[in-house]
Amino acid sequence: MTAVRMTAWQKSPEVARVPVPEPGPGEVLIKVAGAGVCHSDLHVMEWPAGTLPYGLPFTLGHETAGWIHTLGPGARTAGLDEGDAVLVYGPWGCGVCPSCARGAENYCRRAAEIGAAGGGLGADGGMAEYMIVPSPRLLTPLGDLDPRRAAPLTDAALTPYHAVKRSLHRLVPGSTAVVIGVGGLGHMAVQLLKALCAAEVVAVDLSAEKLDLAAGAGADHCVPAGEGAAEQIRELTGGLGATLVLDCVGADPTLATAAAAAAPESDITVVGLAGGTLPVRYGTLPWEASVSIPYWGTRPELAEVVALARTGRIRPHVEVFPLQEANEVYQRLRDGLIAGRAVLVPEE
Amino acid sequence: MTAVRMTAWQKSPEVARVPVPEPGPGEVLIKVAGAGVCHSDLHVMEWPAGTLPYGLPFTLGHETAGWIHTLGPGARTAGLDEGDAVLVYGPWGCGVCPSCARGAENYCRRAAEIGAAGGGLGADGGMAEYMIVPSPRLLTPLGDLDPRRAAPLTDAALTPYHAVKRSLHRLVPGSTAVVIGVGGLGHMAVQLLKALCAAEVVAVDLSAEKLDLAAGAGADHCVPAGEGAAEQIRELTGGLGATLVLDCVGADPTLATAAAAAAPESDITVVGLAGGTLPVRYGTLPWEASVSIPYWGTRPELAEVVALARTGRIRPHVEVFPLQEANEVYQRLRDGLIAGRAVLVPEE
Amino acid sequence: MTAVRMTAWQKSPEVARVPVPEPGPGEVLIKVAGAGVCHSDLHVMEWPAGTLPYGLPFTLGHETAGWIHTLGPGARTAGLDEGDAVLVYGPWGCGVCPSCARGAENYCRRAAEIGAAGGGLGADGGMAEYMIVPSPRLLTPLGDLDPRRAAPLTDAALTPYHAVKRSLHRLVPGSTAVVIGVGGLGHMAVQLLKALCAAEVVAVDLSAEKLDLAAGAGADHCVPAGEGAAEQIRELTGGLGATLVLDCVGADPTLATAAAAAAPESDITVVGLAGGTLPVRYGTLPWEASVSIPYWGTRPELAEVVALARTGRIRPHVEVFPLQEANEVYQRLRDGLIAGRAVLVPEE
Amino acid sequence: MTAVRMTAWQKSPEVARVPVPEPGPGEVLIKVAGAGVCHSDLHVMEWPAGTLPYGLPFTLGHETAGWIHTLGPGARTAGLDEGDAVLVYGPWGCGVCPSCARGAENYCRRAAEIGAAGGGLGADGGMAEYMIVPSPRLLTPLGDLDPRRAAPLTDAALTPYHAVKRSLHRLVPGSTAVVIGVGGLGHMAVQLLKALCAAEVVAVDLSAEKLDLAAGAGADHCVPAGEGAAEQIRELTGGLGATLVLDCVGADPTLATAAAAAAPESDITVVGLAGGTLPVRYGTLPWEASVSIPYWGTRPELAEVVALARTGRIRPHVEVFPLQEANEVYQRLRDGLIAGRAVLVPEE
Repeated sequence: MTAVRMTAWQKSPEVARVPVPEPGPGEVLIKVAGAGVCHSDLHVMEWPAGTLPYGLPFTLGHETAGWIHTLGPGARTAGLDEGDAVLVYGPWGCGVCPSCARGAENYCRRAAEIGAAGGGLGADGGMAEYMIVPSPRLLTPLGDLDPRRAAPLTDAALTPYHAVKRSLHRLVPGSTAVVIGVGGLGHMAVQLLKALCAAEVVAVDLSAEKLDLAAGAGADHCVPAGEGAAEQIRELTGGLGATLVLDCVGADPTLATAAAAAAPESDITVVGLAGGTLPVRYGTLPWEASVSIPYWGTRPELAEVVALARTGRIRPHVEVFPLQEANEVYQRLRDGLIAGRAVLVPEE
Repeated sequence: MTAVRMTAWQKSPEVARVPVPEPGPGEVLIKVAGAGVCHSDLHVMEWPAGTLPYGLPFTLGHETAGWIHTLGPGARTAGLDEGDAVLVYGPWGCGVCPSCARGAENYCRRAAEIGAAGGGLGADGGMAEYMIVPSPRLLTPLGDLDPRRAAPLTDAALTPYHAVKRSLHRLVPGSTAVVIGVGGLGHMAVQLLKALCAAEVVAVDLSAEKLDLAAGAGADHCVPAGEGAAEQIRELTGGLGATLVLDCVGADPTLATAAAAAAPESDITVVGLAGGTLPVRYGTLPWEASVSIPYWGTRPELAEVVALARTGRIRPHVEVFPLQEANEVYQRLRDGLIAGRAVLVPEE
Repeated sequence: MTAVRMTAWQKSPEVARVPVPEPGPGEVLIKVAGAGVCHSDLHVMEWPAGTLPYGLPFTLGHETAGWIHTLGPGARTAGLDEGDAVLVYGPWGCGVCPSCARGAENYCRRAAEIGAAGGGLGADGGMAEYMIVPSPRLLTPLGDLDPRRAAPLTDAALTPYHAVKRSLHRLVPGSTAVVIGVGGLGHMAVQLLKALCAAEVVAVDLSAEKLDLAAGAGADHCVPAGEGAAEQIRELTGGLGATLVLDCVGADPTLATAAAAAAPESDITVVGLAGGTLPVRYGTLPWEASVSIPYWGTRPELAEVVALARTGRIRPHVEVFPLQEANEVYQRLRDGLIAGRAVLVPEE
Repeated sequence: MTAVRMTAWQKSPEVARVPVPEPGPGEVLIKVAGAGVCHSDLHVMEWPAGTLPYGLPFTLGHETAGWIHTLGPGARTAGLDEGDAVLVYGPWGCGVCPSCARGAENYCRRAAEIGAAGGGLGADGGMAEYMIVPSPRLLTPLGDLDPRRAAPLTDAALTPYHAVKRSLHRLVPGSTAVVIGVGGLGHMAVQLLKALCAAEVVAVDLSAEKLDLAAGAGADHCVPAGEGAAEQIRELTGGLGATLVLDCVGADPTLATAAAAAAPESDITVVGLAGGTLPVRYGTLPWEASVSIPYWGTRPELAEVVALARTGRIRPHVEVFPLQEANEVYQRLRDGLIAGRAVLVPEE
């Protein structure tokens, strides 16, 4: 079958032919419908050898949807059957530690021992015709959603969903949530906030086009990024500031905006990894504004994301490309030419 | 001024002339814009002497909006000024005990010592041209909302808001909330659920007209009350049942529907006081379904209700009547002729 | 090997010889150290055929600790190794549904399809020399705890732990928790409450001996069961009532005490299944007191129970008996002659 | 009466004679039993004019206990009477805004309009024989606690209580809480953690004497501050790190230890204001470790602190001095010669 393989560090992946894998005991073979193309793959390609604890080679693709092709020995369980459309939950933990026990495999306590972080992240991922998933527990049924368009739910939607969900108890009516950066994650974040709570939603971006995308996704206010942004947010909130600032960029200027726009007892949550720094010090932040950088989301949260998508209230904006064109698509991503999320689809 | 006075138990109130009161130290005089007409007033009129710990006479009206007319000595505080439109928070506690300290004056631990439960409930209420409120803390600014139409927010909206809010953490995408009884509280409950979370909302009522009202308020499904209702809800939820059942009636048959429609780990919350019984026993309810009867809501919740109303996402359905016609309006309420909420308005 | 087998409904189990099982793909073979003897087994034996959805025969024992003997093909995972002392988590779900994804296999949404509720509950349990566990996810490492004495942690401790944990946010300093019935679950509940929060703990029982056990476990107050119990609790709490009433009996009189002793906004949580009824009706319960009947606990909670036991703050009171004497021990349990928990231990 | 007065910025206060104040409408006159001497007073004295929005002169003392001497007109309320021993809640808000409505006057939204932050912080405080409190809502009954020794509860205990309480849901058995700096707040933090949850408690300090104090307060482990501290904490936690790090110092090295000792999904909570910076950046902190700087605590939390003190589980370590010696005591505080908390007591 065709697969997009990382074969060396600091090089582009190869579109290669590899054998279709066989599911071992407890494993599931997925026929891939589509695999999302994520910014973090570019980091994987660019970082020097030794940065990531992954062995080579492996197939890329950590945002995958497809159909159950074969349940390996002992993998059959109630509620999953061959032919079912499923999402693949991305971060693969030990399944046993206290974090995994509550479905937070993104925070598996045995991650260092395991090495690979998931399919496409050290283990073979979804940019291929077939993919092995180590356990049925890592599958979320899609019901009647089209798996080719659903792939981004498992990262581009799950990551902001997790980030938003932990602040929902604060997002009471009268509060405000700000999304900085309306890209792959940011446009989902706006949709998620509108669906999940009654907070006013403010989108911030440098690009007028992306602010239009945010408005279409339901943002109540659109604010151009830059020096005046925090002040504008403070005015929109009657001086109080925002109860959640979700920074989907994570650069120094966006983090500075986040700090300046936040209310007391707010959450400043950074999901963009542009490498900026937010210095926390008495006087730089409102009282009890808390800053954190979460990673991905949990298994029960993925089921909730799927349920929300099935109601139609969130809809990833997807562009579909053939699997063979992986390197061209990564180049478009580098060039900022992907609106929403690109998905690679194997030939039928 | 004109006031609607309870002067004897088990009698209708009198529309009488009384002096305009003067605010004492710490008190606030409100010029009334409107006072909601609530089912529970009918109980107050009907129950025998001694049932309620209130002295006679007093002015009815526990759902009041108006304008600050005079701040008594020592009552001035930041953010409140003469002329401001305000809601009157209904349950008046001691203001000091641990429940009142967090704004839950509905559960004041000194309630028994205080006697009156609030304005219109033992103390003089809002069915008059003016009303004394014992402290500015019991006022919630309305901003630009019209106080004549806003009065029902303080009870008909606050009561279901409180009931819904305590279950919001469970109402994740994929869950279902059921509202039984689409009257004054129920039609607000449907609007509130749609605004506050992504759960599917099912309305249940005997009347096709009220189900239409529910559909207009955004209910995803409308189910006729009766024997098959619970089964229909179970089907709509893929067999799981509802995560919140809000019973706005509270009669034996609606409670039986609630128990039969509930999911494991759900909340069955009764805000209608029709006097029914729900027997809790091993086998009669799903595991960890919890049954409770809350009372009204808290001060911070009322501020959230007002914030939500200001966004336009909730809108009480109001019919306005002159204050003098109080007894005629109570009769219409008894006769089931009020759609949504009736509000009594003094002559200007 | 020797095993205690249910071979017919409404009969005592047989102590029989059966082959040592082989672990299939994904499964784990446990060498049993001890299996707790639980009241609910008596129900299993007494109920007529058809009451439970289990096929016959099967080995009893749903409260099991032991050592990992063999990891079946594909069952190896980080953090678990042959020889490790482990607890077996009791309720076995599908592992995939949203409830199982967060570790709440006690509320698996596919339970009806699965049939057996766990080892000793339809599937072969721990009253044997060896036992098959269907997945390593159902094992909790015991560290240096002695598995012969640790078995009761998995039910007698986990069940009250779950019941207490859901109320911990209410059990602030100044609040009171009441434990009714100081048996296998109740004596653990007292220890758990003292370890987990600063609430005052009141134990209620008919037996002076059991109240002594409660006092030894740290109860702040011991109250004889019966007519005056609720009044005494109300006095101890300055009239407020208890914020948690954990009824480990569940009979009509204990439920009546629970209702009469509860505070507004309290939890009345029933973990004893003596078949009583608590009628919920306006006026019978304080405002927002919520009544529910939870079932067992979750996987992450079991890890917390083990962590707590390792600090020495909870210690099940255990009596050890040889596996062969299972029927004699069940008789002692029926006769009320077991203090704390009996554990059956295979010959070495 | 004697009072300790701030009369000029960047100067020591004066011990002066001023008239006993009269309570106005809604106000309460407190006969002071004792006022705690807090590090933050030193900042008030040292900062240049214009740093704080307070007018001069005013009486110091924001940590006050005493007895109700006179209830001003309209200040009488259920549950408070002349002669009652009370704590004065320190941060005085508007009492009406959504934050004040839930008792979080520490985060009053009108603080900027009000100017003074409370008694001793712009308004006249408790370092005097009598003190005016603007409303009975700002009083917490002490019951049978000695008000001379209870004063530190209102800040030295309330501040860490608030900081700990917001993390309690994470502090499950098996988790670890670290307290850095065992001074006035830190020694209370250790006591509070031991009383409120089952987490292991680790104390960190430069001084062996203070670590002894921590051990006496119940700390499970004592770790010398410095380079190896974080590594030691990581070893104590099996590599996971601490779920709460409460930094009662807030200098660069302690913040670095906090960041290095924290677990994923932890809280790093800074209550010491030594002016250090914690830079938050991808890679510097574990995933979802959140950093924040809270301020004081809420009214309901103060009631909980008092309830806890009444059980004897927390006990501020207090040294009593005569009110006249205020400046000598501030000097001892500057010199690091106060163990626990100094309290100034007026002559009887």
